[in-house]
Amino acid sequence: MKKHNFGAGPGILPKEVLTQASKAVIDINNSGLSLLEISHRSGDFDAIMARSKELVKELLGVPDDYSILFLQGGASLQFAMVPMNLLPENGTAAYVQTGVWAKKAMKEAKMMGNVDVLASSEDKNYNYVPKGYQIPSSSAYLHLTSNNTIYGTQMKSYPDSPVPVVCDMSSDIFSCPVDVSKFDLIYAGAQKNMGPAGTTLVIIKNEALERAGRKIPTMLNYKTHVDGDSMFNTPPVFAIYVCMLTLEWLKSIGGVPAIQKINEKKAALLYNEIDNNPMFNGTAAVEDRSLMNACFLLSRPELDQEFLKMCKESGIIGVKGHRSVGGFRASMYNALPYESVEALVKLMKEFSMKTV
Amino acid sequence: MKKHNFGAGPGILPKEVLTQASKAVIDINNSGLSLLEISHRSGDFDAIMARSKELVKELLGVPDDYSILFLQGGASLQFAMVPMNLLPENGTAAYVQTGVWAKKAMKEAKMMGNVDVLASSEDKNYNYVPKGYQIPSSSAYLHLTSNNTIYGTQMKSYPDSPVPVVCDMSSDIFSCPVDVSKFDLIYAGAQKNMGPAGTTLVIIKNEALERAGRKIPTMLNYKTHVDGDSMFNTPPVFAIYVCMLTLEWLKSIGGVPAIQKINEKKAALLYNEIDNNPMFNGTAAVEDRSLMNACFLLSRPELDQEFLKMCKESGIIGVKGHRSVGGFRASMYNALPYESVEALVKLMKEFSMKTV
Repeated sequence: MKKHNFGAGPGILPKEVLTQASKAVIDINNSGLSLLEISHRSGDFDAIMARSKELVKELLGVPDDYSILFLQGGASLQFAMVPMNLLPENGTAAYVQTGVWAKKAMKEAKMMGNVDVLASSEDKNYNYVPKGYQIPSSSAYLHLTSNNTIYGTQMKSYPDSPVPVVCDMSSDIFSCPVDVSKFDLIYAGAQKNMGPAGTTLVIIKNEALERAGRKIPTMLNYKTHVDGDSMFNTPPVFAIYVCMLTLEWLKSIGGVPAIQKINEKKAALLYNEIDNNPMFNGTAAVEDRSLMNACFLLSRPELDQEFLKMCKESGIIGVKGHRSVGGFRASMYNALPYESVEALVKLMKEFSMKTV
Repeated sequence: MKKHNFGAGPGILPKEVLTQASKAVIDINNSGLSLLEISHRSGDFDAIMARSKELVKELLGVPDDYSILFLQGGASLQFAMVPMNLLPENGTAAYVQTGVWAKKAMKEAKMMGNVDVLASSEDKNYNYVPKGYQIPSSSAYLHLTSNNTIYGTQMKSYPDSPVPVVCDMSSDIFSCPVDVSKFDLIYAGAQKNMGPAGTTLVIIKNEALERAGRKIPTMLNYKTHVDGDSMFNTPPVFAIYVCMLTLEWLKSIGGVPAIQKINEKKAALLYNEIDNNPMFNGTAAVEDRSLMNACFLLSRPELDQEFLKMCKESGIIGVKGHRSVGGFRASMYNALPYESVEALVKLMKEFSMKTV
């Protein structure tokens, strides 16, 4: 049975990427060696790293005065690295609290300096994105989270900021165009739109390097990885390779503007059903709805298990909502085909007919 | 042409591991989903994590009062995490400097407290392992590096220590038995004997947790990962899976005692040729020679390129020595077949006949 993978992450990857990655595990570039057993100092891997960076630069239009890094540790390690590198000892960093991930980022910043929470949507279980807050020009930086997987909210625009902006784009990078020049630092765990778990993309403006002026462990200093071209130590070779393949796939279908159209079409189909089918109710504020993660509840929550069972029987995977929101969550990352959303919507219609 | 992979790391992996890993990239457990696109909270991955830990415990005889972690960031991140977690603010850590990796570990410790270099073999370009040094009982811990890939040296026994011992076993873990109970912390990047690049094994005595008493960023605190069962955040799913397969393979051939015998046989064959063929000279002190990495020079270094060319023509890969030692280095990790060492020795004989 064909599976429709709506998982929140690690998420679905394009079939052709998986096919090629599978082959590379046996042999890379007809070298007689597996991708897993080549040196990261080899020409084969040099080419993979160079191409991965080139694709990020091209697909996101990264300006020349930025460095592109592939690190380890996920966004969670970035929560600590950002303040270590950008927040001076007695400085204050401004955070917008749009969910538990933003809150976790704040926790790490508090260990390095002061945190100013400019706005929070915690009052409504993060079902909206705060707007209209003032950004103090004394802040070392403003930290945002572009998309909140758990709650299904997404920033549709970014505030004009008098201070450098840092953004966690883990769950919507490469899904829609972004003006990189407006950010000093963007970071994203790979495992949603970019590749498998195991590497983290960091895009950093070179002038932001060494800004905090503090003593930083070598591996946690962005400058180490800029100077070492993401190969200061052994990088996660396989994860970076699969990112390269995924970005090649994205480029081949027309890049970020093309996938944005597809993502909008997928989201419109699903949200339309949520809005028009009385059995389902969206949880996020309409204007802040994420194109990546749609959260919804049944009007009759006693039927949750039955809906989940029907999903499973139809090969619809990963739609159980996060425990803090409940209900359901359909993640529609770049690689999820439109047909999968059609399958889900068809099932939603059938379910509501059956249970009326 | 069959390749003989003597690369220093990422190193050779067993063929059957590569075959199964390649299949899992397409489908894991007949789920209809790739290993790369399943949730790390799924039953499929829970089983992989549990089995990986179980195999480490069994193969190394890890006592019950230790935790087994799969982290990211390589040994280089451990260089910082060890003193962060084990060295109190004004404490002193004892280091034995057996190579540049030990030196890098010392550099990170110096950021957290005082470093006492008990012994160093830098005077002879690290071609031996210092012995007979005194270990002050006031040290927070003693840090060792069990095997030094660049110089081809290996500790054949560990000193009796009045203080907790921490050991970087990146390049010889699982190659020979080790009494884990003698260590408070063992760490190892996976990419030599255990799996692909992208994950780091940490074995830590539970009583060593939170010992330094300092404020530590969440992701750098071992306790976070013990409490989160290495899944505090998204782990490097694929890398851990391949470690699991590699450890299953090791178990299937008889475990660590069995591979030790094979490793000794491989090393004996190669060192015997190095010692008896006048064209080649070993660089490491004989008593400290590594079973994993054999370093040697040509008696006629002007022929280095010719030897390398002959190696390449025979499918012998990765034998160029590190620039700080020069000459050649043959890494004989667990997965390297005895036949590959035979092929290298045969070539060494041919080379010396040809160039006499």
